[in-house]
Amino acid sequence: MIDQRLLPGEYREVSFESCTQVAEAIQRMVVRGAPAIGAAAAFGMALAAQTSPAGNSDELRADLVAAAGILQAARPTAFNLSWAVQRMLLESEGPAREDVNQLRASLLDLAQRIADDDVQINRQMATHGAGLMNAGETVIHHCNTGALATVDWGTALGVIRMAHEQGKRPHVLVDETRPRLQGSRLTAWELDQYGISYEIITDNAAGFFLSRGEVDRVFVGADRVAANGDVANKIGTYMLALAARDNQVPFFAVVPTSTVDLSVAEGAQIPIEERDPSEVLQIEAQGAPIAPAGAAARNPAFDITPHRLITGIVTENGVVYPPFELNLRQAVMESPS
Amino acid sequence: MIDQRLLPGEYREVSFESCTQVAEAIQRMVVRGAPAIGAAAAFGMALAAQTSPAGNSDELRADLVAAAGILQAARPTAFNLSWAVQRMLLESEGPAREDVNQLRASLLDLAQRIADDDVQINRQMATHGAGLMNAGETVIHHCNTGALATVDWGTALGVIRMAHEQGKRPHVLVDETRPRLQGSRLTAWELDQYGISYEIITDNAAGFFLSRGEVDRVFVGADRVAANGDVANKIGTYMLALAARDNQVPFFAVVPTSTVDLSVAEGAQIPIEERDPSEVLQIEAQGAPIAPAGAAARNPAFDITPHRLITGIVTENGVVYPPFELNLRQAVMESPS
Repeated sequence: MIDQRLLPGEYREVSFESCTQVAEAIQRMVVRGAPAIGAAAAFGMALAAQTSPAGNSDELRADLVAAAGILQAARPTAFNLSWAVQRMLLESEGPAREDVNQLRASLLDLAQRIADDDVQINRQMATHGAGLMNAGETVIHHCNTGALATVDWGTALGVIRMAHEQGKRPHVLVDETRPRLQGSRLTAWELDQYGISYEIITDNAAGFFLSRGEVDRVFVGADRVAANGDVANKIGTYMLALAARDNQVPFFAVVPTSTVDLSVAEGAQIPIEERDPSEVLQIEAQGAPIAPAGAAARNPAFDITPHRLITGIVTENGVVYPPFELNLRQAVMESPS
Repeated sequence: MIDQRLLPGEYREVSFESCTQVAEAIQRMVVRGAPAIGAAAAFGMALAAQTSPAGNSDELRADLVAAAGILQAARPTAFNLSWAVQRMLLESEGPAREDVNQLRASLLDLAQRIADDDVQINRQMATHGAGLMNAGETVIHHCNTGALATVDWGTALGVIRMAHEQGKRPHVLVDETRPRLQGSRLTAWELDQYGISYEIITDNAAGFFLSRGEVDRVFVGADRVAANGDVANKIGTYMLALAARDNQVPFFAVVPTSTVDLSVAEGAQIPIEERDPSEVLQIEAQGAPIAPAGAAARNPAFDITPHRLITGIVTENGVVYPPFELNLRQAVMESPS
């Protein structure tokens, strides 16, 4: 993995040798972004299988159930994490997998397939999403949803990247995305790599540019989408969606169907992770305080954007429009599981 | 003045000996907050009078006009600045002021009166505003509007302080207020002094807490209010007002009538200062970059909150409700000019 906590100051690749280390890396946000967390968790399960001393498949399955618990506890909101872990657990079941080493190999294969599929799926979403864009558009983007947040290519940022490759010359207003500054640190860094025009803004300023008529479209990713289309995404997404709606600017979430949790009827049922207050009280990777010593803080990592504020949800199976309740389920069902 | 750029890390008082130095201090935000800027500008004019070599009142008036230009150019959005400068210019006119040293003295008197009045006016607003609050309420507060932003006591924070002194035990969710972190640096520091319970949140998180039903009321200040009630205030206020409205939480601006600019029909006509991108690209007073080297940024310092999103405007002459066009004018006219 690339240690995303250090960018843009330092590019460092790190590797892990146990499931517990992977879970820690997810929890500490060495790796972040729902699809990237999903792939990391799949490899975490594969690592658990490789490092387990189990002598038969039943023992290995018991170790995998324990590993699944450790990984799923790392971050509660992103659905791709449990989606990937559940796929790996499912792979370990069934009568066809009696040889323990064959089971280990098949689990590693599946993890690799989950990772490879992610890139393919992202490119499909990017094509659908870029089809919505006209040349010369200015878009607002929240958090980081690029190659760093996925296995490669990206979700919302993948759409912008595809539009750029199609010669549409998009311009991006990059929400800095407090508290962890994924926008100014990671998205800006990616846009530099791709040669896409951008300006960083504070999250507070999105409403200003929307109200001035300077924004054509908003693209965000998602950490979990409920069956009714409510979107759990990085904190601040809800206020951004309100500002887009107040100015009649189209607002799209770009999400693989693996992020859609049909078992959750609406956003209010999605658990919201509350992270350490220190992320608010000091600035990422610098550690210098920006508040009085001893100050209290609250740090919810995500919020819920009600489906009524969402123009469309871009999936690998096409752009889904309201009624989301019906159309989202249909898009999910089109994906092979 | 207290150098507000250094808090909460360091408390340092600074003094200035020329109008130009005062203008620079306003521009660099050594002093900030619309009422504090107004008082500082009045003393800047008084300083210009004291340091002018003018031998008669006509020469002094010419120097004061030049000083007014320098001060008014420092920050374009805050109306109190030009309000105070205009009051000082008006004082210098008229046949009664022929003795140049008498004129110098009367200008210093007026600056002191503007400063003294501000404290009195703030206490009146605080009483009106605290009357809106019930015991045990949680309020969201944006930017800094306390003693640091005024001559003393504060506007929106003054309301909260009054409610606290009345034993209503308010709890404050403090918007950190990027880019300059007036919330986490200054408001939290003030609340510590007053012993008021608070938690710092990122600006992004306000919508989350509002949607969870954890907020009873929102109080903000203003830098300029148009005749129709549109409020220019610290960047992010508009999105906060949208989130309050979407959750039926009352949203109040707390503003002295000296902040109301009846010559401006609506918010779209208020000039919005755009400050240096470096404020977005690095963190206040630390200077360490939080974005790739060479990254571009935009930095509007204020936005416009349309009057349709505002429940009421608390002035020293009472709480003004819609229709603002009518009732705001009436409140302004009640103040002696």
